[in-house]
Amino acid sequence: MPLLVAFAGATSGTWTVEHHRNICGPPLPEVSHVSVIEGAAASGSDDGAAWVLRGVTSHERYMTRGERETLVLRQETLARPSSTCAALIAITKSDAWWDLAQDERRQILEARSRHIAIGLEHLPAIARRLHHGRDLSEAFDFLTWFEFAPEDGGSFDDVTERLRATEEWTYVEREVDLRLTR
Amino acid sequence: MPLLVAFAGATSGTWTVEHHRNICGPPLPEVSHVSVIEGAAASGSDDGAAWVLRGVTSHERYMTRGERETLVLRQETLARPSSTCAALIAITKSDAWWDLAQDERRQILEARSRHIAIGLEHLPAIARRLHHGRDLSEAFDFLTWFEFAPEDGGSFDDVTERLRATEEWTYVEREVDLRLTR
Repeated sequence: MPLLVAFAGATSGTWTVEHHRNICGPPLPEVSHVSVIEGAAASGSDDGAAWVLRGVTSHERYMTRGERETLVLRQETLARPSSTCAALIAITKSDAWWDLAQDERRQILEARSRHIAIGLEHLPAIARRLHHGRDLSEAFDFLTWFEFAPEDGGSFDDVTERLRATEEWTYVEREVDLRLTR
Repeated sequence: MPLLVAFAGATSGTWTVEHHRNICGPPLPEVSHVSVIEGAAASGSDDGAAWVLRGVTSHERYMTRGERETLVLRQETLARPSSTCAALIAITKSDAWWDLAQDERRQILEARSRHIAIGLEHLPAIARRLHHGRDLSEAFDFLTWFEFAPEDGGSFDDVTERLRATEEWTYVEREVDLRLTR
């Protein structure tokens, strides 16, 4: 079932913000901490937070059966004890992206940008969960949460830089990149 | 942009319910009228309604560029003066459906069930708008609203009966079919 998740930026919280980069589009105000709230509590009040970003985990929109079988074999879960580092990448894509048909989006995302393949290369070091915000009328279309050990930070930087150089990323009109530790 | 839409069943409203069929799964209580509420007002209070079903219009999940070009040429808009008949088909698909990968769902929906092609055959007589409820934690995954003239009621019955006989429909575990007039 889809799971509603809220990322709350405030003066206290589970995760400490180490770096905050407003990469493009309207900036998100800087905060010192972020908390991750799941399920019914995620739709609660925003009191006390500088901002709350929401998204819902959902079925996969592009992955084929073969790609998913590879993913399931390699991927790790969130909340591993060794994962003391996290990243929250919030992005919004342009109207031009959303006006594309399904086959055109898949063509750009994977056939030409290798988004799924690049992500698979960095498993199992990087655990990942994608949250969809667009259908909830959220400011960000996607919130992707990553967890990894400190020694895998370089691998994570590599994947983000490669994705930002793809054709797919020419459709990204707002992006914020938060790096966190706990 | 996605548009939030609420369908409110009550003792008064724009549309009068002519037939109510609980086809499978938990029944929806019968009401005499349904109103269609769009945008910000759609997230308002449910006071006075027997039930409120919500969904959001969104980007297309399966249609190719070629199919969409055919659709755009043929489809008509809602609220035509001649469209005094409407239907609301609310469905929920099983976990087995949502566990399929994107290519498997497309294969069943179109290659084997011809869902898009069957729909296209009935244009422009039947105007249609699809609303997604699953990511909003709604009881129904999909709410499809149709509008047509009285003389096209037979054509609409034909399309629904053909779709219900497809492989895709074996994944439908809850379905309610309301027919309305204004």
